[in-house]
Amino acid sequence: MKNPVERLRERVIHGDSQKAALVYSPKNRRYFTQFPSSDGALLITAEEAYLLMDFRYEEAARYKAKYCTVLGFVSMMDKLGELIQKHGVKEVFLETEQLSVAQARRFENAFHKAGAEAVLDNTLDSAIRDQRVIKSPEEVKKIEASQAITDAAFQHILPFIKEGVTERELALEIEFFMRKEGAEGMAFSAIVAAGKNGSQCHAVPSDNKVQKGDFITMDTGALLDGYNSDMTRTVALGQVSQEQKAVYDTVLQAHMAVIDQVKPGMRCCDVDKIARDIIEKDYPGTFGHGLGHGVGFEIHEWPRFSKLDPTPCAEGMVITDEPGIYIPAKYGVRIEDMLLITADGCRSLTKSPKELICL
Amino acid sequence: MKNPVERLRERVIHGDSQKAALVYSPKNRRYFTQFPSSDGALLITAEEAYLLMDFRYEEAARYKAKYCTVLGFVSMMDKLGELIQKHGVKEVFLETEQLSVAQARRFENAFHKAGAEAVLDNTLDSAIRDQRVIKSPEEVKKIEASQAITDAAFQHILPFIKEGVTERELALEIEFFMRKEGAEGMAFSAIVAAGKNGSQCHAVPSDNKVQKGDFITMDTGALLDGYNSDMTRTVALGQVSQEQKAVYDTVLQAHMAVIDQVKPGMRCCDVDKIARDIIEKDYPGTFGHGLGHGVGFEIHEWPRFSKLDPTPCAEGMVITDEPGIYIPAKYGVRIEDMLLITADGCRSLTKSPKELICL
Repeated sequence: MKNPVERLRERVIHGDSQKAALVYSPKNRRYFTQFPSSDGALLITAEEAYLLMDFRYEEAARYKAKYCTVLGFVSMMDKLGELIQKHGVKEVFLETEQLSVAQARRFENAFHKAGAEAVLDNTLDSAIRDQRVIKSPEEVKKIEASQAITDAAFQHILPFIKEGVTERELALEIEFFMRKEGAEGMAFSAIVAAGKNGSQCHAVPSDNKVQKGDFITMDTGALLDGYNSDMTRTVALGQVSQEQKAVYDTVLQAHMAVIDQVKPGMRCCDVDKIARDIIEKDYPGTFGHGLGHGVGFEIHEWPRFSKLDPTPCAEGMVITDEPGIYIPAKYGVRIEDMLLITADGCRSLTKSPKELICL
Repeated sequence: MKNPVERLRERVIHGDSQKAALVYSPKNRRYFTQFPSSDGALLITAEEAYLLMDFRYEEAARYKAKYCTVLGFVSMMDKLGELIQKHGVKEVFLETEQLSVAQARRFENAFHKAGAEAVLDNTLDSAIRDQRVIKSPEEVKKIEASQAITDAAFQHILPFIKEGVTERELALEIEFFMRKEGAEGMAFSAIVAAGKNGSQCHAVPSDNKVQKGDFITMDTGALLDGYNSDMTRTVALGQVSQEQKAVYDTVLQAHMAVIDQVKPGMRCCDVDKIARDIIEKDYPGTFGHGLGHGVGFEIHEWPRFSKLDPTPCAEGMVITDEPGIYIPAKYGVRIEDMLLITADGCRSLTKSPKELICL
């Protein structure tokens, strides 16, 4: 497989030396060059790829950025104008989903002075999206390495789940474990929600203490080498009621039905429906979010297992399968794996057990 | 002082029921409502303030969001259209620095259907910026509480700085300490750079081991209750050379000159010049970044102590004072406090010592 910059060049520039693409958003800049920075720009012409970095990052970028030539700048706009003129570029494609209205205007002005026009249709966004949505084998390996830390954190945390421990203490223990294991950070702030807090699917860990009979939902993920993992498990402290058990089993059934049935060509909205129909049958109105989201270089990527996303599944996509049932003011259950779409179905990248663990 | 939503309403709406402001960026939404969420919108009309939250956040927002009425939605655009029509709004001011080109188009379409126009000039951005740049006494207290954790982390880390410890180990120890002390997160990824890595002012902590004679620069900050702190200290392991000592003293002199001279009315670019002139005299070309940045609800806010920012200092601003000298492939020194601009000068919000500590 060609490197990411070459692949984007083929999709957008088509060998036309009057065309260029400017990747400005920090996430996409990092995706293409593997170099993280809070400011800068990647200009891809037919002939060259330039990573423009200010003084703060220039030296580090020279050591670490891939697939590009690093250039320092004092004024980014002046440097871009200079390069546009040097290469005789007339059209510069920009991101529109990631670029602010005000920044787009600044680029338009700078390009205009250098004799080029900004293109603000969705050409560049679509090309990047189409490229990023299919993970390369190297990317899948990185996601699996990230998930290995998340799986290990789940095993690590189980003995800490006892009566009186707070959600926040559990969340910190997971976080510290992941960072010690080599994670560069958390994929997102860990969610640990016990008892009735579990009915808020994005609950922030609080000083709420775990009690006997609670469901404890833990939605966590590591960030490793630029790649995210994402897993949810719900466990119980002590024995649970028949009602709780039935809710758990329904979520698990919905989750497993997706694993059994998803395959290339199936529309994402139809995958969502597989899980939703199972839950709606017995627990109508309790599954208020989408079934899943792409994950990889960002924690939330395309496509979405959602009513609203008709994208057909394709080999190489990595998407979460995370149905849930939320009973307001009582409890919640969610179970989540990351699924890699394969030639004839899917492979879960998640190794942690799914049967209900009663601690 | 009125609440933040009321203050913004006065600045932008002026009692005109045909006008509304839509705050969409997550940071500004949190600033106005004190409720963190990754998606949603805050619509402020002359009469009401509505926080639109999807299923994931709706229940939590009802408990926790301030100064607004929480409404759930399935389609944000439909719900906005409904509210615009209900209130007879004809003009909706939008953020342009934070709003993407593509999202602005989606809002324009939705407003148009409801009989209103999007206003994409800088009215809303300027109003929010002017409001946020002056910290209320409550905000200053929150920044100080955040800095108290950062100061404590500095004292905590000193005994860990020994020959052979890695930058990454020190960074993790600082992070864990801050989180245990109650920080909701780090203000930014901690920078710990030893020896020649210190010449990269935004170095990422690595497996580089601290050696005798190294300068160790630690740029860290906590995030507490939504407010950031930011401090840099450079310490040495063992004795340093005369050359190193001279560099340290020059940075400290530049840093202190700013504290002594800054006051309301002085332009930010002239504050930058106070420190820059001192460093340029003996170490030309070694101080490549701006002197400082506003800090508070975000780690990098307005204004900037920079050549490019002519904003006059005003009472209530909180801005960092962080000169540095970077000698490529040798070492670097940076010293940073947060300064609160007062009626007649400034008060540092940072308590950690600044004389060179040789461990």
